[in-house]
Amino acid sequence: MRETWVVGAASNRFGKMKESGREAATRVSLAAIESAGLRPKDIGYTFVSNCFGIAEHQAHVGPLINGGLGIPEVPSCTIESACSSSSAGLHEAFVQVAGGFIDAALVVGSEKLSHLDTLAATSYFAIAADYAFETRNGATFPGLYATLASAYRDAYPTRPEMFGAIAIKNHANAARNPHAHFQKEISMETYLHSPIIASPLRLYDCCPFSDGAAAIVVAAREFVKTPRAEPLVVRASARAGSITEMQDRPDLLGLPATRTAAARAFQQAKLTPNQIDFAEVHDCFTIAEALALEDLGFVPKGQGASAALEGITARDGSLPVNPSGGLKAKGHPVSATGVSQVVEVFEQFNGLAKGREVPRTTTALTHNVGATGGSCSVHIFSRR
Amino acid sequence: MRETWVVGAASNRFGKMKESGREAATRVSLAAIESAGLRPKDIGYTFVSNCFGIAEHQAHVGPLINGGLGIPEVPSCTIESACSSSSAGLHEAFVQVAGGFIDAALVVGSEKLSHLDTLAATSYFAIAADYAFETRNGATFPGLYATLASAYRDAYPTRPEMFGAIAIKNHANAARNPHAHFQKEISMETYLHSPIIASPLRLYDCCPFSDGAAAIVVAAREFVKTPRAEPLVVRASARAGSITEMQDRPDLLGLPATRTAAARAFQQAKLTPNQIDFAEVHDCFTIAEALALEDLGFVPKGQGASAALEGITARDGSLPVNPSGGLKAKGHPVSATGVSQVVEVFEQFNGLAKGREVPRTTTALTHNVGATGGSCSVHIFSRR
Repeated sequence: MRETWVVGAASNRFGKMKESGREAATRVSLAAIESAGLRPKDIGYTFVSNCFGIAEHQAHVGPLINGGLGIPEVPSCTIESACSSSSAGLHEAFVQVAGGFIDAALVVGSEKLSHLDTLAATSYFAIAADYAFETRNGATFPGLYATLASAYRDAYPTRPEMFGAIAIKNHANAARNPHAHFQKEISMETYLHSPIIASPLRLYDCCPFSDGAAAIVVAAREFVKTPRAEPLVVRASARAGSITEMQDRPDLLGLPATRTAAARAFQQAKLTPNQIDFAEVHDCFTIAEALALEDLGFVPKGQGASAALEGITARDGSLPVNPSGGLKAKGHPVSATGVSQVVEVFEQFNGLAKGREVPRTTTALTHNVGATGGSCSVHIFSRR
Repeated sequence: MRETWVVGAASNRFGKMKESGREAATRVSLAAIESAGLRPKDIGYTFVSNCFGIAEHQAHVGPLINGGLGIPEVPSCTIESACSSSSAGLHEAFVQVAGGFIDAALVVGSEKLSHLDTLAATSYFAIAADYAFETRNGATFPGLYATLASAYRDAYPTRPEMFGAIAIKNHANAARNPHAHFQKEISMETYLHSPIIASPLRLYDCCPFSDGAAAIVVAAREFVKTPRAEPLVVRASARAGSITEMQDRPDLLGLPATRTAAARAFQQAKLTPNQIDFAEVHDCFTIAEALALEDLGFVPKGQGASAALEGITARDGSLPVNPSGGLKAKGHPVSATGVSQVVEVFEQFNGLAKGREVPRTTTALTHNVGATGGSCSVHIFSRR
């Protein structure tokens, strides 16, 4: 297996895009390739994610992006795994490069939904849940994650301020991230007075609908030789699934797919959770960040919710989490999210995360969840 | 690189399904695993294709299928490359198994569109073309392939009977295939009197909208050891792209992606076209079969259209093509098509193609195109 690196990365500003998803994907792809000091013709395969292309009347996006990059002969495919789509794309890119099938791959996620109204956007998101048992009965994601939050509240002593502190931290980080959708801090008072969306989740517990695009270049160490930027060595690329339907799970105090993927990732990387310097985790709702910290083994069970309030996950805490602002505040353009977590690691490793630097950047973890945990990807990166 | 086999295969009858796409996918997946003499827990990764899941309000199908198989912890993703989706899934499965990342993978394609009216179904299909330059201006696939047929007619002396012979051959084969959508033969008179759909294409030049599901199991030789069925050794798994928009291509007398993918496949397999015993090619329209024969190097340029009329591609000809009945008559449930071509090779290799056997089954090729050739996959299989 060849040592495999992430050698380039780029993102646009999440929020509202004027251009189409394919145009944004092409633009960030070119920027990612340039940041790597490579040329489009170095790319051997393009993995695209674009869950809601249908909302722009467009599937089969890979050949359009490759055409725009001037490499139409390069093969491509679109990879979907709900909100974990582009980290699933990264996994395929890793396998192809590490296995020696290609020397370099482009992984790009792009999403545009802002031209739809909120009901239509919610309906698109909801197709990632189980239609027969969940969506058809009105259970869309705020309700499903509210169920997880309720179960957590019933099991452990919690205070609303614990979840508020997660949102406040991520907004503060996003305020220092030029790619972020929300570049403003919020106060505990703002959090506590925000409207209930699905009890107990308030407005500021929820990530927004965002447009956005992000791309990375994955390449074999032996192919790149002298990287332009400090590369991320892929120490682990692990994925797992779990029962989609929440009512069929033995317990709601965590996501089984995260636990399985994390165990595989730490085994691959030969590392333990306490050796990770910082993490980007899937915080589509504040409860999701709390559960991720526990499922990934960073804190004991029942202590994920309080970690932000205690300062553990702050940029200067013992384990900085979501220095990018996370899905919560950087935004969640579904297919771009997994790759954008890696963009943050790239920027932290390369001193490009001005104003939101974390103190230690030797080893980082990214955690990307599909739906309510039907799928999960965990990646671990380290410096050379 | 590990020697990689297709060790199991299954398909339902294409046409109109009462069950949902996910139910059909689960059912054929289980049948494919059983045909391999394996158990679901042997599967290390599931690659699903289901282009039009949105028409059933369902994305993120992999965890649902794996849940149904009793292996919810197994990772999955959905792969889309228009009509070449499940052959793109096969490519990823091959890479993961040959590269030693997993021992066995499930590749399944499923599609249900029959609950929609024809206009809605055509609109879904059309999202695989270029929305900005083609679809938005009314160029859906019958029109786009009619353009290819017109260019061919202008360049070479052709007669309608040449295209008619392709349809007649494929209907005759499908009449002997229990998986086929159309199990009836047609006559030249029927062909010549069928209505024009998009000049010069007549009704019987066009494949139907079909529901359907097909699945295969891909595994490492060293994992299977004693296969239940005669395995297909994957000698080549090659993919390529080309400019999506037909107006930007230098020539319309073939699909550049087929030529590129075929060159890569023959190089990988260390074989030449004349060493292939039979082929399943992508005949969404009769002109597509004619072009495929030329682009794959089976016949010289300008001689693809006449091959069926001359008997070359008959089951007892020098190169049997589409013994299954092809997309034209077996049917074209978009995401199931690529895998179903491999199901036909599996059945031919195992003596299961009763009544439609081809004489030589040492080496076979499958050719699967996305849209009008923005993507193409070519696989070559041989006996042990």
